[in-house]
Amino acid sequence: MSLKYFFDPLSQPSRAVYIFLKIANIPFEPCPVKIVAGEHRTEEFKEKYSKFQRLPFIHHNGFRLNESVAIVRYLSKLYKIPGNWYPNDSKAQAEVDEYLEWHHLGLRYHCYTHIWTSFLIPMMTGRTPSEKAIQKTKKNLSKALKDFERLFLSENKKYIVGDQISFADLQAACEIDQLKMVHYDVQEETFPKIKIWIENVKKECYPHYQELQREVDELADVYQQTVKSKL
Amino acid sequence: MSLKYFFDPLSQPSRAVYIFLKIANIPFEPCPVKIVAGEHRTEEFKEKYSKFQRLPFIHHNGFRLNESVAIVRYLSKLYKIPGNWYPNDSKAQAEVDEYLEWHHLGLRYHCYTHIWTSFLIPMMTGRTPSEKAIQKTKKNLSKALKDFERLFLSENKKYIVGDQISFADLQAACEIDQLKMVHYDVQEETFPKIKIWIENVKKECYPHYQELQREVDELADVYQQTVKSKL
Repeated sequence: MSLKYFFDPLSQPSRAVYIFLKIANIPFEPCPVKIVAGEHRTEEFKEKYSKFQRLPFIHHNGFRLNESVAIVRYLSKLYKIPGNWYPNDSKAQAEVDEYLEWHHLGLRYHCYTHIWTSFLIPMMTGRTPSEKAIQKTKKNLSKALKDFERLFLSENKKYIVGDQISFADLQAACEIDQLKMVHYDVQEETFPKIKIWIENVKKECYPHYQELQREVDELADVYQQTVKSKL
Repeated sequence: MSLKYFFDPLSQPSRAVYIFLKIANIPFEPCPVKIVAGEHRTEEFKEKYSKFQRLPFIHHNGFRLNESVAIVRYLSKLYKIPGNWYPNDSKAQAEVDEYLEWHHLGLRYHCYTHIWTSFLIPMMTGRTPSEKAIQKTKKNLSKALKDFERLFLSENKKYIVGDQISFADLQAACEIDQLKMVHYDVQEETFPKIKIWIENVKKECYPHYQELQREVDELADVYQQTVKSKL
């Protein structure tokens, strides 16, 4: 097998690329890495696998590559995949790119900051999280989701770029959907368009999307037991 | 003129794309927008020019596009530009992409957070900045620059991807170089490889790089007069 995929289902971009590989029918050798066990932080790992020490990444016939979006673009040039996932057409590709660039600081930063503040740091330190800090990250997150809905789901179309799903949708859905880890419900928080769109993404990516959600669901239980019950 | 470029020289990605357009010899109509005057925040601007209300963006024969990297990829497909700036070769392009994706949260976030904390917020509010807050953003920035040097400039090569400059270098250099706005010197802060590399980027992009630095230099004077003198 020439393509090795290193990932952890607990990492959002890991899930997005895993689902993409499955849907696009690209053959790969799955190489799971356990983030919580710190497997990616050792010196041996840095030398042998990835100097970035972050997930996901690939080894492809000796070529090493990090960053989920760079991986998807690279594989889209090499494998015959359904054109909608990363379009060849200049304008459609540009619109997918526009979202994927906006994603990092427009959405991802706010999702993971909220999850770290309200769950992961309190869980690791055993301290009750600060209500003020949680409210701050939640407010920023709410603004980011409002922007996402307005900028990318506002017109009369099913997905971010028209009526066909692309990697932009998968990247965004995996990010937003993991908020259930901290019991943040996008419907409850009045983002009805996001709720409908995310259900469409799930249907389109069945059963691979659902398969990778199990570990996220388990973390939602851990959150209930370790942090939420103390709030 | 079919390509309109909306930008402000004070915005880092605006500078990077402007220099790219000049170097790549792509004809465009410059459409300056004044961020400090809030020109991009009006409802009229949102309707007429860009719903994102962020810079830079383009209007190209009626097609509207935001996000600096998406713009560069789009134009690289349409115009005949020197191949090194955004390579066609799968592996070289993937390495440029790898940096450009890492850039957002790996470097950009830390550069602008430090500049906002130590300069722009104090300047706008008239308050003396908190020494503790400055030290925190400076520490995170220092770690980001260390990562940048280790991950992208550590091997025996002149630029991020081999010996030829690409848009990855321009994006990174415009980001790091603006730290002089808050008198942060990368040599003084012991990043000698960054110092040499940034000088190479400047030489390669002469005189366009230098032309856009004037406004950054002016802000360095404002910083001296309004904030640093009070610290």
